[in-house]
Amino acid sequence: MNGFVEQHAEQVRLAAERIHGRVRRTPTLTTDLDAEVRLKPECFQVTGSFKPRGAFNAILSLVARGDRPPGVIAVSSGNHAQAVALAASTVGLPALILIPEDANPAKVAATRALGAEVIQEGITFANREQRLREVMAERGFVLVHPFDDWDVIHGQGTAVRELLHDEPELDVVATPVGGGGLLAGSAISAKSHRPGLKVVGVEPAAADDAYRTWRSGAIQTLATSPATLADGVRTTAIGTRNFEVMFGHGLVDEIVTVTEEEIAGAIQVAWSRLHLALEPTGTLPLAAYLSGKLPKGRVGLVLSGGNANLQTVATLLETK
Amino acid sequence: MNGFVEQHAEQVRLAAERIHGRVRRTPTLTTDLDAEVRLKPECFQVTGSFKPRGAFNAILSLVARGDRPPGVIAVSSGNHAQAVALAASTVGLPALILIPEDANPAKVAATRALGAEVIQEGITFANREQRLREVMAERGFVLVHPFDDWDVIHGQGTAVRELLHDEPELDVVATPVGGGGLLAGSAISAKSHRPGLKVVGVEPAAADDAYRTWRSGAIQTLATSPATLADGVRTTAIGTRNFEVMFGHGLVDEIVTVTEEEIAGAIQVAWSRLHLALEPTGTLPLAAYLSGKLPKGRVGLVLSGGNANLQTVATLLETK
Repeated sequence: MNGFVEQHAEQVRLAAERIHGRVRRTPTLTTDLDAEVRLKPECFQVTGSFKPRGAFNAILSLVARGDRPPGVIAVSSGNHAQAVALAASTVGLPALILIPEDANPAKVAATRALGAEVIQEGITFANREQRLREVMAERGFVLVHPFDDWDVIHGQGTAVRELLHDEPELDVVATPVGGGGLLAGSAISAKSHRPGLKVVGVEPAAADDAYRTWRSGAIQTLATSPATLADGVRTTAIGTRNFEVMFGHGLVDEIVTVTEEEIAGAIQVAWSRLHLALEPTGTLPLAAYLSGKLPKGRVGLVLSGGNANLQTVATLLETK
Repeated sequence: MNGFVEQHAEQVRLAAERIHGRVRRTPTLTTDLDAEVRLKPECFQVTGSFKPRGAFNAILSLVARGDRPPGVIAVSSGNHAQAVALAASTVGLPALILIPEDANPAKVAATRALGAEVIQEGITFANREQRLREVMAERGFVLVHPFDDWDVIHGQGTAVRELLHDEPELDVVATPVGGGGLLAGSAISAKSHRPGLKVVGVEPAAADDAYRTWRSGAIQTLATSPATLADGVRTTAIGTRNFEVMFGHGLVDEIVTVTEEEIAGAIQVAWSRLHLALEPTGTLPLAAYLSGKLPKGRVGLVLSGGNANLQTVATLLETK
């Protein structure tokens, strides 16, 4: 155990206290698949994904520090948007979410239903960072970054902290990796629990920037947002703080990639045998497990969320 | 509290001890739908439904009494078949399951995979009771009835016993009702917990024998096995022991019925908002809740299983 891990694990502990009562203590599940496997089903978290852990920790920390900005802002078309909307409304702060024009209307409606203001007009994947800076300058809102933020990383670390409280003897923990918020937080919790506990990030082969970053030792960026069933991990590069935790301090042992076919197979197994209605991104660790890509031993799979596009899933289930 | 409830609640307590370690302690879930609702997701039980609670209690009780028949037998094309197969193989007893010829091949395969012998040839819905008696006479196997059996009823009662341990302040408990094993066991657990706790059975309007039995005060039998999405509750009448608990002793307050449209809507809500991949029968209490048919207050919904026909569900999800 080094000082870096200890210091950040203490921040995860404080995050767990801070968000207690705001987010759910999700259960740990066993399955008929394999007696060695444990599931952490974050599909049962408020808003249907792990994201409120980080969003609540960031926004409650902001308020606790005495900062009281006119509002918070986020750029997201998915689970982070709903998490920020919920956390902001809970503490009475306005939330403004920039969502690209071509986003799923159901997710836009869900974000608005949680009380956030949504700006879509003229927002594209390409110009959204630019528009974000403009709106922040205009209104003085504070950004809640989806992953490259210590409070967010510490909040996301609370899921694996709970899992290891329930199952202290795990040998391996696997999580999806997009920007690296969940994986970095999980790695802090896992390595502070036991340095020999293996931490594995799973990403689609079609979006293998984290894999190439791990192999090369420097942040690699995808040229474009990749096409993958796992639409929650389409970020083109991990963040600098996430890099520092995961590879700078070596808290992540391995990144493995899974094919689109393996993701599709994992969705079918999740829905038919585990009885969990997961979104494709949420099945990434299961896909790695089913394809034999995880280290052997007692394995904990963090299933990150359940906000699936039902049309996509219906098609996959029909072709089973 | 009367002596009947006390005596049977003690049997449920003993059943919980007996099956401990054989079945799963399923979690109690909260949802984003309504802060007053609690879910008991028996889709996470071994084999994907609540049925092993009763099957293990019946078979372990049989063995504990010193009976050691040459085997056990059941008639089922669904969840009870897998439960009996698993419980029998656990204690080293042969299991023979009679399954009608037109049953879902996937369920037949699942039952065989659990080590049971399956007889399908010449078995129809109409002649299966007759064939059962013949095979029992030939082989001396002991029947494990799916619902009209005290050990089965007491085993099924352990689910609501756990739910009320987690959530002692519930005002209402709702379960599906087919033959009445789950509902009778649940009613024993609920009324011994607090006599004022309301117990509601939910069945499809297309299979309303329990509703008509409740209204008339005598067991009513459907002329034929009904067509309903909820294929787990197609029994044509509740059992005599189930009647005694539910209506003879008045432990069930009400039976409500739901339409096929309400069941379809509940499946969609379960899969899209609760992130539970339930079978249609498992959604019956949710359908009753969503259509405003349950009493007000803190409601516990027992979601009985997750072994859905994926083709059926895929079609429902696509039409959402």
